[in-house]
Amino acid sequence: MPEKLLLIPGPTNVSEVVRKAMSGPQLPHVGAEFYATFKEIIGLSRQVFRNEKGVQFVFTGSGTIGMESSVTSLVSRGDRTLTLSSGYFGKRMLMLNQIHGAVAESIDYPEGGHADPDDLRKKLKGSNYSAVFMTHVDTSTSVANPIKELVAECNAAGVLSVVDCVCSIGGLPLEFDKLGADIVFTASQKALAAAPGAVLLAASDRAIQAMERRESPIESYYMSLLRWKPVMEDPRMYLATPATQVLQGLRQALSEVMSEGLDARWARHRKLGELAREFVSAHGFGFVADEGYRSDTVTSIWVKDGMAGPIQKTMESDHGVVLARGIYEAKDKMIRIGHFGNLQPDVLEAALASLDATVSGLASAEPVQMAERT
Amino acid sequence: MPEKLLLIPGPTNVSEVVRKAMSGPQLPHVGAEFYATFKEIIGLSRQVFRNEKGVQFVFTGSGTIGMESSVTSLVSRGDRTLTLSSGYFGKRMLMLNQIHGAVAESIDYPEGGHADPDDLRKKLKGSNYSAVFMTHVDTSTSVANPIKELVAECNAAGVLSVVDCVCSIGGLPLEFDKLGADIVFTASQKALAAAPGAVLLAASDRAIQAMERRESPIESYYMSLLRWKPVMEDPRMYLATPATQVLQGLRQALSEVMSEGLDARWARHRKLGELAREFVSAHGFGFVADEGYRSDTVTSIWVKDGMAGPIQKTMESDHGVVLARGIYEAKDKMIRIGHFGNLQPDVLEAALASLDATVSGLASAEPVQMAERT
Repeated sequence: MPEKLLLIPGPTNVSEVVRKAMSGPQLPHVGAEFYATFKEIIGLSRQVFRNEKGVQFVFTGSGTIGMESSVTSLVSRGDRTLTLSSGYFGKRMLMLNQIHGAVAESIDYPEGGHADPDDLRKKLKGSNYSAVFMTHVDTSTSVANPIKELVAECNAAGVLSVVDCVCSIGGLPLEFDKLGADIVFTASQKALAAAPGAVLLAASDRAIQAMERRESPIESYYMSLLRWKPVMEDPRMYLATPATQVLQGLRQALSEVMSEGLDARWARHRKLGELAREFVSAHGFGFVADEGYRSDTVTSIWVKDGMAGPIQKTMESDHGVVLARGIYEAKDKMIRIGHFGNLQPDVLEAALASLDATVSGLASAEPVQMAERT
Repeated sequence: MPEKLLLIPGPTNVSEVVRKAMSGPQLPHVGAEFYATFKEIIGLSRQVFRNEKGVQFVFTGSGTIGMESSVTSLVSRGDRTLTLSSGYFGKRMLMLNQIHGAVAESIDYPEGGHADPDDLRKKLKGSNYSAVFMTHVDTSTSVANPIKELVAECNAAGVLSVVDCVCSIGGLPLEFDKLGADIVFTASQKALAAAPGAVLLAASDRAIQAMERRESPIESYYMSLLRWKPVMEDPRMYLATPATQVLQGLRQALSEVMSEGLDARWARHRKLGELAREFVSAHGFGFVADEGYRSDTVTSIWVKDGMAGPIQKTMESDHGVVLARGIYEAKDKMIRIGHFGNLQPDVLEAALASLDATVSGLASAEPVQMAERT
């Protein structure tokens, strides 16, 4: 069976070489070979995050574990926190704050709306939030938030900032040192094009100090970034057995990212985003995300209620292309096209041509485009 | 480079077929193919755990995540808990209870000592512990605790029991339904011979009810077994992106376990344990674990202080066999031989012959055996 093209917001297709890297003999996680692999992963991750100043973390997990580790490590019970909620993952970040005992407030944006730096500035004025949580790209809507401006507002107010970069790092420009955020994290299976199973996270010295200065200890073992920090510096320290094969694949994927070069990779993703948006505009679909805030890594579009399923099904069965639908209530009327990782523009163009054919075929019965949400 | 033989207490060598299962094209975690894989994994795990009555869990993680999920899901702040501590992992379970706010007590056994059902019975008498935590095999000492008797004491006292079976399930006889424990868990890379990256856990209905009846909610998202339960029943539910390749390998490994048959597999491990113990006795090394409580999956022995390093090094460089040393203070005077997973008795015998040669070679300078800890 030929490999399907995954145009979902992760996981994405992984290269043959990454796959091969995951299928070697089992390495002991306590030997020199694995230690060397791990150090290389940390070094490559620093390059990919453009993180020279902060602490770099890589451990077994997922974006969810990255998010929860950030919350539980940084937030003490009773802390006031603010979450900018512009989609499913924003809502989840708010929920994690609540689970971990924060007095958690949020600014909630309508579906497709982006977080607004002006709203944030007003909210931060005279407040005593200990941290602000935001998503760079919320894959549920494909909104790309203006994180530079948002983080700048946090820094101006002296508040820690945490940015979920799960659907951006490796695809959208993100430079940890320059951005000035306190924690950013992603997962291996997104724009870095490795297999799922690892979280990659950068934390500023200020974030680490805030964890060290907590009055009450971090209420987790595995999710404590303070416990992981010495392991990152010396992998001979034991915290938990790592998913060695996932990490071997990740090393290969990260080195492929750096071989392409970050700037070239970002430019390719910009091109992918443009191609997707041109297609959507030309075919009369409605964008879910606000104009000017549409991610170059994923494009969510409205379709006629009930048509998301048939489109997805036909694309997979007839063209070998896997698309995603909307989450929960949007599942029958939203299609999400992931375009990141190793995807080349000509491959996306061919897939969009298939989508064109699919839509035309289905439209012979009735139109499937929708300019707005029904 | 030929594959090394891993005689460490995990990870263990994985079969060619398992490795191949991990290197296929990336599967979307939201498609029919992965759902079918996941359901098969749950079904096979039930067989391997002999768990028909309880809830079966499999999710991305490690033994550590299994342990912490059990603690945080079951224990509310202020609960009194008891940990039977017979080694490093017992100590860690105690620490996890403390981190999660339990009024955590322990019965501490000396290195190599086993948890004693009489001690437990006395301690439980008139007490109000909400749960008792214990390890089946503590890989730091290779003690196999008498969990049948220990769990029976818990059940007689009406106290929930949690058993860390990381170094036992798939190697030592363990039947969840018959045992009557409330939670048991293991990790993929031990006696099940899959790659690291997944936790497998069984919970009794009573354990689930205890979680549901908590007065305060579980203080974690990813580690909440109550949140994972619906995903286990219907993998279309989303909690976090699973490590799909690790799980594809796990499915293959579990089906290899069931092809061999649990009873045959347990008998093979009994044989492996006997071979290791015969070697140790014949060569005058001291056992770390109490007689009668030595695991069939791992054997820890005392060597002359300073010799653990040279033995380990020579075995790897000259014979391609990787052994483990003791943990922390024991690292220079303890050797740990893992013998589980796919290991066949003749392969262990050959490795023990190499160990014999190694010890003889090193002993030409000075004897390396030690009957007891120095």
